[in-house]
Parts: sequence; structure tokens; C-alpha cells
Amino acid sequence: MFEHSGLLTDLYELTMAAGYLQTRFEARATFELFVRHLPPHRNYLVAAGLEQALDFLENVHFSAEEIDYLRQHPVFRNIRGEFFDYLAKFRFTGDVWAMPEGSLVFPGEPMLRIVAPIIEGQIMETYFLSTLSYQTMIASKAARVVTAAKGRQVVEFGARRAHGSQASLLAARAAAIGGCQGTSNVLAGQQFGMETYGTQAHSWVMAHEDETEAFAQFLDAFPEHAVLLLDTYDVHTAVKRIITMNRKPAGVRLDSGDLAKDSQWVRRELNRVGWTDVKIFASGDLDETRIAALLAKHAAIDAFGVGTALATPGDAPHLNLIYKLVEVERGGKVREAAKLSAAKVTYPGRKQVFRYSAPSGEYRHDSIALDGEPADGGEPMLVEVMRGGRRVTPAQPVADLRARCLAGLARLPRTYRQINRAAVYPVQYTKRLEALLEKLRRRIRRSALK
Amino acid sequence: MFEHSGLLTDLYELTMAAGYLQTRFEARATFELFVRHLPPHRNYLVAAGLEQALDFLENVHFSAEEIDYLRQHPVFRNIRGEFFDYLAKFRFTGDVWAMPEGSLVFPGEPMLRIVAPIIEGQIMETYFLSTLSYQTMIASKAARVVTAAKGRQVVEFGARRAHGSQASLLAARAAAIGGCQGTSNVLAGQQFGMETYGTQAHSWVMAHEDETEAFAQFLDAFPEHAVLLLDTYDVHTAVKRIITMNRKPAGVRLDSGDLAKDSQWVRRELNRVGWTDVKIFASGDLDETRIAALLAKHAAIDAFGVGTALATPGDAPHLNLIYKLVEVERGGKVREAAKLSAAKVTYPGRKQVFRYSAPSGEYRHDSIALDGEPADGGEPMLVEVMRGGRRVTPAQPVADLRARCLAGLARLPRTYRQINRAAVYPVQYTKRLEALLEKLRRRIRRSALK
Repeated sequence: MFEHSGLLTDLYELTMAAGYLQTRFEARATFELFVRHLPPHRNYLVAAGLEQALDFLENVHFSAEEIDYLRQHPVFRNIRGEFFDYLAKFRFTGDVWAMPEGSLVFPGEPMLRIVAPIIEGQIMETYFLSTLSYQTMIASKAARVVTAAKGRQVVEFGARRAHGSQASLLAARAAAIGGCQGTSNVLAGQQFGMETYGTQAHSWVMAHEDETEAFAQFLDAFPEHAVLLLDTYDVHTAVKRIITMNRKPAGVRLDSGDLAKDSQWVRRELNRVGWTDVKIFASGDLDETRIAALLAKHAAIDAFGVGTALATPGDAPHLNLIYKLVEVERGGKVREAAKLSAAKVTYPGRKQVFRYSAPSGEYRHDSIALDGEPADGGEPMLVEVMRGGRRVTPAQPVADLRARCLAGLARLPRTYRQINRAAVYPVQYTKRLEALLEKLRRRIRRSALK
Repeated sequence: MFEHSGLLTDLYELTMAAGYLQTRFEARATFELFVRHLPPHRNYLVAAGLEQALDFLENVHFSAEEIDYLRQHPVFRNIRGEFFDYLAKFRFTGDVWAMPEGSLVFPGEPMLRIVAPIIEGQIMETYFLSTLSYQTMIASKAARVVTAAKGRQVVEFGARRAHGSQASLLAARAAAIGGCQGTSNVLAGQQFGMETYGTQAHSWVMAHEDETEAFAQFLDAFPEHAVLLLDTYDVHTAVKRIITMNRKPAGVRLDSGDLAKDSQWVRRELNRVGWTDVKIFASGDLDETRIAALLAKHAAIDAFGVGTALATPGDAPHLNLIYKLVEVERGGKVREAAKLSAAKVTYPGRKQVFRYSAPSGEYRHDSIALDGEPADGGEPMLVEVMRGGRRVTPAQPVADLRARCLAGLARLPRTYRQINRAAVYPVQYTKRLEALLEKLRRRIRRSALK
């Protein structure tokens, strides 16, 4: 299937690959993956997607049919056959260091570093950016939503708004890494060992002759788990029907209307007949801002279902993760690389990120250093995850990644966790890194004069 | 693989399925898929994604392992074994009518109608919404971008910003349906028979000792197709280097900076040495608004690469496509269904959409009618695409879908095609449909009094 196809890349990655072979450019390259700036409304990111990236590295290949396709492409007309032979034997052989999933990440910090023959590192770029951008974006959003819910359950409902079925699986997984309790997505539940939730839709109510019949039939089928949907026709009437039937459901759900007022009214009505343990679920275009507003109005909601915001967040719909060449080793000579165009400077050299904490465990600041610089009490954030194309650490269950995220958030000072206020966590580059950038700048300026 | 898994759905679809079986609720249901409102900055939508939806219908099934997973789920604890037997034999047997891909769609108009045993129709909901929402959103955005480019080539560059690898394929396909010339996505090119574009990235330039060497090597490898990237260090220096080398590339690309001013300068410099046929490509966070602004400033750009905006459009990051039950046939009795909650009314009954044109061919208005109402000169937009679970029309090449979209846009009055002004294309419901909604409203009100 398409999931491990080497063609899952931009054409220019393959033209450059052919170019490197054709011109006998043999080099080992280091690429790093990071964001230059945070998206709007974000004070931090939550790293996610590494598992899918490593799976791709372990399995990527070019089928004979795919290679034939490339042979026919006009751009490769003058390329020697060795390129196609190379692709037929292609597998990833490089080393990878990365921040484990669930780690907090800040701008400028490499989330991941690949050291590999330059062609291998190049071809991976597109897939890496795609899977890591998306999951990091969703995990980061989920952390905000879960923060806003103040301990109430948040379940990801985004499958229908995700960009296709694979995106729905990745969203469910990433939302859980960011702190969600589970998902409505059944396949995500099965594949990633996550809890799944959901009971009835408006269509169930509409399909029956009337609401009372619809509720009664559902309670017959699910005596212990029925969560009845109240807003198909009229919330007040629906609650009165359920109480009149005198059959206690596990919960009720509100999907539209004034969720604060309606939930309070529903809670009072349920409590009046002693049903204090019937849970009230809310859904319908929720996000961290709406959840915070509902709780500020004392909405009587026990759990939130969040769909669109966790599949394709409207307040920050993309994460401009970038993948940059920072070092080239060729003929035994190591040379750092940087991009110096006005708005898009990148720091050269292999890096490590150190996170410094107060004695209480609270995070204080991060430092971006050249690999090998002394840590000086900081915790190194990048760890080795793959050597010579093989993983050196096993895949971790989503529950562990979620726990890492929640533990990191607990150590992050409150000011950066606030969902409605911008605050810049302090991150600095070390003096050695600044000096190396300056050296490169001078070297490239000199070369420009030639 | 996961692509045809019956678990690609929200859990509530499966609990309702179990509930229908458990309570012996046998019915044939009609579901319709539509948007209530257009997203911001859109005057029309371009239907896309039907091919993937039909492929899912033809192949969806539950594996033994998947059924075992469901058996263990606590929500199904009281459900009889017949549910799991049903899933083991599950296949889609219904009928589908749809607007062909590339058709223009307006709010309220069903893009697709499914008539099937209620359980089958229900389980499909999540997958349908996801694949059709996404591709329709991208095709609709692409149509705007292509309109803004006024005949210049637009190539989709979004793979790295798409929500995973499958989304990147769907984006490339949908962008082509909306009018793009091709994509940078190699696998999309292979799978959908689309043209692919791309040559070199900043990393190629950075990997070499200096820019001159980088350009020379690339020209050696691709004497006919080299498009050289100008903005790794400094655009002016880069152009001077290329001219000094006296080796004419196929094109040059600008990816940052003042694209209007730089492109004009580059054009003049290239023309000065007689290289009037060297194409200038531009990329870097482009969308229809930036393209229109560049052309208004007489930018000398021959082709645009558009990434993020065609993978995850920031101005309208989701499309609230909905899938609603409109009719239930049970025990020989047909009953129309509607949702009447304040903000979310849906019209009952099976529908057809008629599009009316002026004698010139220009579209005038649409009418949403009950199926079977007389067309009265209007063109019916929904056509039969599947009967009894099998396609009745073959899959169409993307080029044909693109041609349908461009032909439709050409017939749409200019006022609705403008990218910077809202204009509401006239769509009305027929009197019979309005009367049916009123009848249902009264029936449900009466039942609420019971």
C-alpha cells in the first residue's frame, strides 16, 4: 500500500537525489526539523508523530512499478540508469535523534535530527514534515483544550472533519498525546489501544416514530451505556420524556443551543428525580475558548466531545515546521550549512536542546547548544532513537506519551499554560552557536564577492 | 490495510447499528450530504472526493480481528451475537446518487444521496464526511487560486503541509479538480495520472561549497529541466552568477522576499542577455489574495507553486459538510425525517437539484426540489452513480473532472467568481419542499404535546 512508498515525496527531492548521484556528490548530511515561530495562540508545542516517522524510515522503499513510473518522467530523461538501480535497493540507513513524543517544544528547537547519506535525508523531508507537523499541531491544540476543561474528560470527535481517514487516525492519536481521554474513532481505538466513546446521533431519534420510542429502544439495547441525545427537537421536552419514562440513562448529551444554561437546567431536572449520577456530555463546535467560557458560566457539564478543533484547528490551521540542512560531511571534511536569506535565517551545526529547571522541578528556560557542548545542569531533550536505520528504543504506548505531556505541562510555569494570554518561554542560543552563525555569514559574504 | 476498514467510523455509528439489530428496527433510509452555509470567503464550492467515497463503499468490510476487538468493547456487552455475525458478512448494498466531481455546489444542495438499509447508511457517515469535506474544500480553494492566477500555471506544492501522506494525495487530486496544472507530489502523479513538477531546494545550494558550484552541478545533471532557486543567500548575486556562467536554465524560482519587485528585476536581467524564454516560478506562502496582489503589481511571474493554502487553507480551514437522514421506509411506510432544533433545521425528503441557465449558457439560479418534481428546463445535478452497492458509471480521469470544473466556472456569472467579494448565488427550495417541511414541523409539534 501507499504508506511506505518512496514516491511519498515532492518531485524535487527525487531530482536532487538523481542530481547528487549523477554529479558524484557523496556526502553525509545532517538535517534538523523545527519551527521558526509559534503559530498564533500558542505558547508551546507538544511533540508528536515520531512513531509514524520512524515507521516510515524503517519501511520506505520503491517498488518496481514506481521506478518504472520515474523512468518515464521527462525530468529524468538524461539521468543515468544508476539512479534507478539505486532506488531499487533504497533503504534508510541513517541515525536519528529526537525529542520523545509528548515533550514540550519551543521555537528554534530541533524536534528531530537526521544524520544520513544526503540523498536519504533529502527524500525523507516531505513525509517527515507532513506527519510531524500535523500530529504536533493537534497534540498542541489538545493540550490547550484539556487545560481549559480543568480535569473534566475531553474526548476527540474529529474523524468526520479530519482530512481523510489516515488523518483521522493521526488526529485521535495526537489528541490523546496532548491529554485527551479517548476518541470516537473506532479504528484509532483498535490500532493505538485507546478508549473509544459514543452512543447515539440525531439520526437515531429521527429514524423512530417519536422521541420516546427512540429513547426506549436505545435503553433496551444499551441498558448500562445509553447516553441519550437531547437536542434533536427540543431539549426540555426530551428531558421530560426521559424522566416520565422513568428509565435512568448513563448520560445525556447536548449538541447545540445554549450549553451553559441548558446543562444547568438539565442537571436540576435530573437531580430533582435523584439522578445525580447521570452524566451530562456536551459537544458541538467546542474548543478551549468555548469550554473556558462555559465553565466560567458554571455550565453543568461532565465531559466534552471536541471535533473540528482537534482535527483541523481553525485558530492555527497549520504549523510551519521546517527541515533544514545544518551540516555536510564530504571527503572527510565537515562543513556547517545555514540559510541566510533575510527573513529565513537558520542556525548551522548539529544541535542539542537543554531544559533547565528550578529545584522545585519547574521549568526555567531552554538553551539551544551545539552538539557536544556541556549541559551544565540542563536536561538534554534530544535522545537517540534510530541508529543505522534501525530503532534503538521500542515504540511507547500512547498512554505513556500522554503521561509525559501532562507531566511536562505540570512543570511548565502557569503563565505559559494560560490559554488566553501570550507568554514567551525563554529560549536562548549558546554563544558558541551564535559565533558559528556569524562565522558562516562572513564566509558566505566573502564567497559572494568572488 | 486500513483504507477499507469498517472501523473507520465513529463509535456511535456502530452502537446505533447494534441498537437497530437488537431492537429489530428494519428500515431503508435515505441520507443526504450537504453544507448549510458556505465557509468564509467562498461564493461556491467544487464537489470532489466522490471517487474515494465510492471506492470505500465497494470495499468496506470488517476483518475477524476487528470484530474481535468490538466483542471486547464494554459498550457491546449486552449485545446479541447476531450483531457480530452481521458485521462479518457486512457489505454495502445501497444506491447512491451524486453530483459528479468538478460540479459547482451551493449551500443546502445535496452533493450526494444514499438510499440503503439504515445500518449501512449510518456506518458510512464518518468516512463520507471526511473524504468529501476535505477534497471539496481543497478543490474549492484551488478554483479561487487558479482564478487569481489568470491563466498562469498553478502547481500544488502542499504535501509537506498536508495532514499526513493520504491527505497529501487527496489534496493533490482535489487541487487538480479545482484547476491546478499539476502537483509536486510524486505518488499523486503516479496514482492519479497527473503532471508533477519540481527541481531543486535550498538544501541543494547549501550542500555545495558555493552557489556557483551548486548551479553548475544541477545544470550538468538536468541540462533541459533545471529550475534554479535564487533566494538561498541573495537573489541579485544568484542571478549574476547564473548569467556569468552563461548557461541558460529552463527556469528560476523565487521562494521568499519581495516577489513582485524581485521577479521584475530578474526578468529584466534575464531579458538583457536574451534569455526571454527562461521561466520565472514563484512560491512561498502564496494564495489567491497574494497572487492577485502580485499580478496587480505586474509581477513577472510565469507560474505559481502553492503549498499550505492548497493543503490546509487558513481562510476556511474546515467545511461543515453534514450527512442527514431525510427519509425512512419501514414496513412499507415512507416517512420523511427532519431535524428541527433552532439553528439546525434540515429539509426532509429525497431531493434533486436543478440548475437553470440563460440561453447563453450562463447559470441563472438553482432550485432544490423533491425527487420526482418536474425539472422545468433545469439541468438535474444529481446522477445515479451506484446501484445495489455496485458502480453504474466508471471512474473518470482527473483531467476530465478538472475540465468539468473549469467549464462550470466559465458558465458562472463573473460576480460569483470574484475572489475578493461575497456574492450569493440564488438557490431556492421548491414550494412542495417548503410545504413538506411545514407538515413535519406540525406533526412533531403535535407529538411533543402528547
